[in-house]
Amino acid sequence: MNGKTQTGNFFEDFQVGQNIVHATPRTLTEGDVSLYTALYGPRFAVNASSPFAASLGLPRAPLDDLLAFHVVLGKTVADISLNAVANLGYAVGRFGEPVYPGDTISCASTVLGLKPNKDGMTGVVYVRSVGRNQRGEMVLDYCRWVMVRKRDPAAAVPEARVPEFASRVATDDLVVPTGLTVRDYDSALAGSPHRWEDYQVGERIDHFDGMTIEESDHMLATRLYQNTARVHFNQHVEKDGRFGRRIVYGGHIISLARSLSFNGLANAFKLVAINGGRHVAPTFAGDTIYAWSEVLDKAALPGRDDVGALRLRLVATKDRGCADFPLKTEDDRYDPAVVLDFDYTALMPRRR
Amino acid sequence: MNGKTQTGNFFEDFQVGQNIVHATPRTLTEGDVSLYTALYGPRFAVNASSPFAASLGLPRAPLDDLLAFHVVLGKTVADISLNAVANLGYAVGRFGEPVYPGDTISCASTVLGLKPNKDGMTGVVYVRSVGRNQRGEMVLDYCRWVMVRKRDPAAAVPEARVPEFASRVATDDLVVPTGLTVRDYDSALAGSPHRWEDYQVGERIDHFDGMTIEESDHMLATRLYQNTARVHFNQHVEKDGRFGRRIVYGGHIISLARSLSFNGLANAFKLVAINGGRHVAPTFAGDTIYAWSEVLDKAALPGRDDVGALRLRLVATKDRGCADFPLKTEDDRYDPAVVLDFDYTALMPRRR
Amino acid sequence: MNGKTQTGNFFEDFQVGQNIVHATPRTLTEGDVSLYTALYGPRFAVNASSPFAASLGLPRAPLDDLLAFHVVLGKTVADISLNAVANLGYAVGRFGEPVYPGDTISCASTVLGLKPNKDGMTGVVYVRSVGRNQRGEMVLDYCRWVMVRKRDPAAAVPEARVPEFASRVATDDLVVPTGLTVRDYDSALAGSPHRWEDYQVGERIDHFDGMTIEESDHMLATRLYQNTARVHFNQHVEKDGRFGRRIVYGGHIISLARSLSFNGLANAFKLVAINGGRHVAPTFAGDTIYAWSEVLDKAALPGRDDVGALRLRLVATKDRGCADFPLKTEDDRYDPAVVLDFDYTALMPRRR
Repeated sequence: MNGKTQTGNFFEDFQVGQNIVHATPRTLTEGDVSLYTALYGPRFAVNASSPFAASLGLPRAPLDDLLAFHVVLGKTVADISLNAVANLGYAVGRFGEPVYPGDTISCASTVLGLKPNKDGMTGVVYVRSVGRNQRGEMVLDYCRWVMVRKRDPAAAVPEARVPEFASRVATDDLVVPTGLTVRDYDSALAGSPHRWEDYQVGERIDHFDGMTIEESDHMLATRLYQNTARVHFNQHVEKDGRFGRRIVYGGHIISLARSLSFNGLANAFKLVAINGGRHVAPTFAGDTIYAWSEVLDKAALPGRDDVGALRLRLVATKDRGCADFPLKTEDDRYDPAVVLDFDYTALMPRRR
Repeated sequence: MNGKTQTGNFFEDFQVGQNIVHATPRTLTEGDVSLYTALYGPRFAVNASSPFAASLGLPRAPLDDLLAFHVVLGKTVADISLNAVANLGYAVGRFGEPVYPGDTISCASTVLGLKPNKDGMTGVVYVRSVGRNQRGEMVLDYCRWVMVRKRDPAAAVPEARVPEFASRVATDDLVVPTGLTVRDYDSALAGSPHRWEDYQVGERIDHFDGMTIEESDHMLATRLYQNTARVHFNQHVEKDGRFGRRIVYGGHIISLARSLSFNGLANAFKLVAINGGRHVAPTFAGDTIYAWSEVLDKAALPGRDDVGALRLRLVATKDRGCADFPLKTEDDRYDPAVVLDFDYTALMPRRR
Repeated sequence: MNGKTQTGNFFEDFQVGQNIVHATPRTLTEGDVSLYTALYGPRFAVNASSPFAASLGLPRAPLDDLLAFHVVLGKTVADISLNAVANLGYAVGRFGEPVYPGDTISCASTVLGLKPNKDGMTGVVYVRSVGRNQRGEMVLDYCRWVMVRKRDPAAAVPEARVPEFASRVATDDLVVPTGLTVRDYDSALAGSPHRWEDYQVGERIDHFDGMTIEESDHMLATRLYQNTARVHFNQHVEKDGRFGRRIVYGGHIISLARSLSFNGLANAFKLVAINGGRHVAPTFAGDTIYAWSEVLDKAALPGRDDVGALRLRLVATKDRGCADFPLKTEDDRYDPAVVLDFDYTALMPRRR
């Protein structure tokens, strides 16, 4: 290894307060939208149809919010998580301006906290990452924490400094896209008659369908996001690794589950917050992903009677249907089939 | 299952004369065109090159007609065929205005007929589906019939009412795209010197090449079309199903066969009718698809000397070359290798 | 086989001096760019971001140069190499104007030489192929030679006529894209601080990462390029062939290796020449590709102090890391893990 190949930061390379500008700004296009459709099969009308988006006051169909999420996260990998052993969680994520074809996303991160593990081999790195478009407008601002290896077990480590995250994004902090006005929402084209008023806190919805993952699918997706984490791509190394095979990028599961959730949540048309989330277990090619949702909370939005916010728990499982809403077992551990426990907030049209 | 998850219509839910507006209008883009190219490898110059399309009087390269077909059909699945056990046939399909990148396709269907099966478990549903662009212009108008399960075997069923379909679209009903004028057709760029005059009724053409299907390919395609039929995606369920594995969307085979048909029919540049068609046998990942064509009929078009119509039978096989044009065996059953028997009409340039 | 199916040219069909216009001009789009990103995961900022490209004086992000290469090569296959048994080498390739989304590429070839093999069954065909955009500007001009089967072993063959190729493209013949001026190159966004001055002749760089190939990936790529060589697609035939399986298109390996080379050569942002190249061994689905580079030469460009040229050897291996730079064994044969030995010239920003 000469000095030009980058092998990523190790735990001892990070400092609290450190700012990192990530490489490779990315112009997103209709080509990325089509690939996203081919990879997950989403059917939300606002992302699929420019006339439908225009009927809501938007200039054209915006990209799926999770496509923006994956691109922003992908940029951080080479600097933050190339030497990670686990992606531990997400918090206080806010989506800002929608991303439209032609927009260019850049990303920078700040190290918020560091916590050495007692084993002396690893530590937890807490970062806040902000993605912006070519006009400098925020498109996604979120925190995540990952467990990162030390290069040198003997390296000095800082004292633990663990940031506190709110358990959810406050309603007042949610960003409604510029121009969005829901006047004549066409329920037939959108695929569901159910509006914000029709969902009750505590209500659970089985999304019913399942989708099997192929190696080619998750690698195409992860390369599209320019996410370079090695565990997703290199069978020659992974055959001797922890699982004997490539691990599917966790975000791939979020997108699959969100696309499956169309069946029951077709009108939850815009993600505005990621309150938290955890990849409970790894997934692999050959796994079939199912999903269910629970309405955690509802909030009217200040000054608006056209859209309301739904806070939703999105749970994904592998190789197990969700008719009985699997989540935890009696000892409060996750059901062995659960792979994702994701907490987000979406906008939904109200009755008027 | 609460009331929000949609499980599709069952046989007893349909009524003759019923109109159904399908969800999720779809703006088609250059991204979809590229994916279509990557999935099937078509080489028809009019779809691949905007300057070539312009030389024929078109504003730019239109989408492959079958891409429009798949998107229109895909929209109908959630309402018509989610509980189908078999896709029985197509009839009287007419292509209207070409679809260009940026166009948005919507689709509505009318139930033309219903025929309960004697087993009391299923029935045949006949529908006419019309896809339109954002200006309301027809892009595809076709009929298909599918065998659909009953939810409740004891449910009352209507008397049989079976529509009669013409065996072919009449020449006068064929739509030549607005602006199309074939003056300086460049045979070298198109890849073949053979014009409409060079094809004889009864002539058969072996398209020679074969293409092997992977699970990832057919699932990418079917998600791109937002076709949600479960049998294509869920190995966890299908491993215990009829075939023990996922079934390839029948339209995927039509597109593979049509792309293979470039070799021999490179100048059959525009589909104008689907006279009929039948998916003779299911296909699976690992199958290699071959194809051959027969010229069923030829028709000059009223008032035009630049293009003529060829009615073609397109036969696809699996794991068997088509040098001897396999179709039926002595007892008039399909050869076991045949998977598709498709009858369509295409435009081809004439000599002038 | 009737007269309409094309089975490609055989060795005895070629004549020195023959000109061939290839079929199917291809309009390249943002959709092709996205697929290229999904297939290889390149991160070069100039191709990923239109604002970054604009900062270098370009109208927008150009396509990856190798995408143009694959499309130009793909057009030649049906005429030149459909009956090839081996793709032997490349020489004196020059990239001209960058290709931008919306450009249409056409291609024509000239037969430069022919050399019958002593076995009487095959011969080598040397061609020069030139790809041009819709304005007739050269985008790629390169030579390759392939071993092609004879249709009839008894057919008369011409006397051997073997062209001589320069071992490299002369510096004065390199084309710098119109408008390119590197003033404010943003190293943080580009992903590397290393400039032309920082690379030394003889320096070797291990690109470290590996990428496993799936059947679906290489077939999607090769169809995207409209490359119809049969060995890549037809498992039904190849199961009984030389290797018992489909062979990956050699260009797929070039693109994988080039994308991996970002790690160490992030600022080698523009290919200007292919000096030579050889596919040393075939690759198959399941292989994991690694790569390393050696700086073969450096050249300042006449009249320019903003960019310089680096001549690079790019070596790809399968199922073997490149920390020790594998190339040849003691008897001057290629290391059995080496699959590609490619010699190209790239532009890189200079310090100013």
